[in-house]
Amino acid sequence: MNRFVYDIPTKVYFGENHLKKLGSEVSQYGKKVLLTYGGGSIKKSGLYDKVIAELEKAGLEIFELAGIDPNPRVTSVTEGAEICKREGIDVLLAVGGGSVIDCTKFIGAAAFYDGDAWDISIGKAPVEKCLPIISVLTLSATGSEMDAMGVISNLETKEKVGMGSPLMQPKVSFLDPTTTYTVSKFQTACGAADMLNHIMEIYFNRENDLFMLDRVMEGLMKTIIQYGPIAMAEPNNYEARANLMWTSSWAINGFLKGSKRQAWTCHPIEHELSAYYDITHGLGLAIIAPRWLTYTLDEDNVSKFYDFGVNVFDIDKSLEPMVVAKQSIEKLEDFLFNTLELQSTLTEIGIDETHFEIMAKKACQDGVLEGFKPLRAEDIVNIFKMCL
Amino acid sequence: MNRFVYDIPTKVYFGENHLKKLGSEVSQYGKKVLLTYGGGSIKKSGLYDKVIAELEKAGLEIFELAGIDPNPRVTSVTEGAEICKREGIDVLLAVGGGSVIDCTKFIGAAAFYDGDAWDISIGKAPVEKCLPIISVLTLSATGSEMDAMGVISNLETKEKVGMGSPLMQPKVSFLDPTTTYTVSKFQTACGAADMLNHIMEIYFNRENDLFMLDRVMEGLMKTIIQYGPIAMAEPNNYEARANLMWTSSWAINGFLKGSKRQAWTCHPIEHELSAYYDITHGLGLAIIAPRWLTYTLDEDNVSKFYDFGVNVFDIDKSLEPMVVAKQSIEKLEDFLFNTLELQSTLTEIGIDETHFEIMAKKACQDGVLEGFKPLRAEDIVNIFKMCL
Repeated sequence: MNRFVYDIPTKVYFGENHLKKLGSEVSQYGKKVLLTYGGGSIKKSGLYDKVIAELEKAGLEIFELAGIDPNPRVTSVTEGAEICKREGIDVLLAVGGGSVIDCTKFIGAAAFYDGDAWDISIGKAPVEKCLPIISVLTLSATGSEMDAMGVISNLETKEKVGMGSPLMQPKVSFLDPTTTYTVSKFQTACGAADMLNHIMEIYFNRENDLFMLDRVMEGLMKTIIQYGPIAMAEPNNYEARANLMWTSSWAINGFLKGSKRQAWTCHPIEHELSAYYDITHGLGLAIIAPRWLTYTLDEDNVSKFYDFGVNVFDIDKSLEPMVVAKQSIEKLEDFLFNTLELQSTLTEIGIDETHFEIMAKKACQDGVLEGFKPLRAEDIVNIFKMCL
Repeated sequence: MNRFVYDIPTKVYFGENHLKKLGSEVSQYGKKVLLTYGGGSIKKSGLYDKVIAELEKAGLEIFELAGIDPNPRVTSVTEGAEICKREGIDVLLAVGGGSVIDCTKFIGAAAFYDGDAWDISIGKAPVEKCLPIISVLTLSATGSEMDAMGVISNLETKEKVGMGSPLMQPKVSFLDPTTTYTVSKFQTACGAADMLNHIMEIYFNRENDLFMLDRVMEGLMKTIIQYGPIAMAEPNNYEARANLMWTSSWAINGFLKGSKRQAWTCHPIEHELSAYYDITHGLGLAIIAPRWLTYTLDEDNVSKFYDFGVNVFDIDKSLEPMVVAKQSIEKLEDFLFNTLELQSTLTEIGIDETHFEIMAKKACQDGVLEGFKPLRAEDIVNIFKMCL
């Protein structure tokens, strides 16, 4: 058990009708705000108009960067940073899902950097300053609204990388579950798979953590399993959308990792799939996760699977640990592929063996991918093959 | 389910050997620091010397207020506030348990108030400013290290009141589980009972909250049940002390209450006991809690007890809800009075019926004590009698 520093200062307005606070929160940081968003769904839903109205009411000068893609591109970062420099932007307001917020984090950092924005994404240029970021979340999945990380893609180099700095953590986030009512069944399922995987990446790790945090993680995983299908069946179910929304933030904001020395596995592997095939992140994770668990299960780590099976999936605790472990993976597959109705193989989404070798090498950076079980490139290729 | 604002900015250094950061953290807020502590146990343990060394290394000017009592008195607040005004103190450093931190919160507010410090405690004078507070925790119990609340006693008027303001929330807290190794078996048990009760006060409430938070609460309660007895039997067990310490903070820092409209019951009742008899808070709560649950259990609220029994005490989920509910209270009593070895009745600790009527009236302020089940003075007297 290791020492850690807990520092999650993001203030969250949770629930309906908080948006009237938006103007005063943004105004704390200055007069010129850059509003960032994606493909225009916030215009269809009416959220864009509400946000603009609040910003205008507060007398803010508004600039805009639209068109941030899912799996956001570094080209958007460059574009946003240029606006910040040119216009002297004081504060960034990201309205959207994780992609928009992630991209905005990099814009905030790149606004203070004169070189190529990609340097920041790959850590070549350290984040020394960042414009303050406020977010209005519209999709429960990545947890970017309350954490210090972002993921960004470079289509030219086929790279997708994650990077973070406490300076990039949103100051304030608005989480209104009703803004996720319009999220499609498929994207709701992908979001549930994404947040479940964030917890599993921490839960399944070699080093024992605080018992307390393992129990909290199990509670959060149960919540996703409970409400993922309800939100899919009843998109306007407030209780389901609210539980998923708050769980998505806590899955990855840093609280759960606590004192655990941990490394992530599914995410770097999936980032290669997204980088090469531009698939939805949560779907990629869903396909990889059960195969990763099957590949890593052994006599030494079976107790973790046993806890997972008994405490998350209510498997009979009197069964042999290895039996519970295998059943827990079956239950996970059943949840992801039957309950959430996600495609279960790479083949189904049009991915074959072509790039397995190169993606595997990149995922482990030609070395070892640490985590629950250290994986080399050949292990990752094996996992990819199990996903066919 | 209601809207809420989540805002817990306290930064926490958790684990051993973080104290070298103390000087720089305190220095952020100024040069003149008032060090507050209790009866001198920090001198015996050597913590006092370590703290002074770090403050001196950072070139801080140190003032001291010693002798803050358990169930801290408003007289200490007055004394501390006078030092702050006279010396122009910039920042407060509380080294101790909840009593020291609570008292320090009121000192921070009273430093900006010219009238009687008690006015602030009873809300007669609003908290408009507060000196920044940093804490070094030595006892896992009240959660004061990460919340905005404090409790203060007035021996003259026999009053013990709780009050809070976001301004009073510690900026930084140092939580080193090894500093609690010297906590006695009895105080360890009382601390466990206290933090368990903090969670129960929220968990047992009329309004449904997020499923997610109920599951998290169950995980935290399981943690206390797991590690309370281990810490009593093995005072130097790091894992037990660490789990209890971090759980004590999360039991009451505001995260759990989430969207629940909730009112507390055991605390206001217990505060009367402490005000009249100066007993240890956690012990008073332990005696009251199971009787309160017995008194409130009915057909309408049995499902909450059922969850408590099944998810916290692993009672067979196939049993009738009312059977599980009654067993859950028995399990709670067994934990508090057998496992934690706390005295189980008021009689045992020398309290009789003498003040029941007046304490009951004060607890509900001559009206209704809202909460899981609304209680009038006669209900509270009945609960007191069940505790004899």
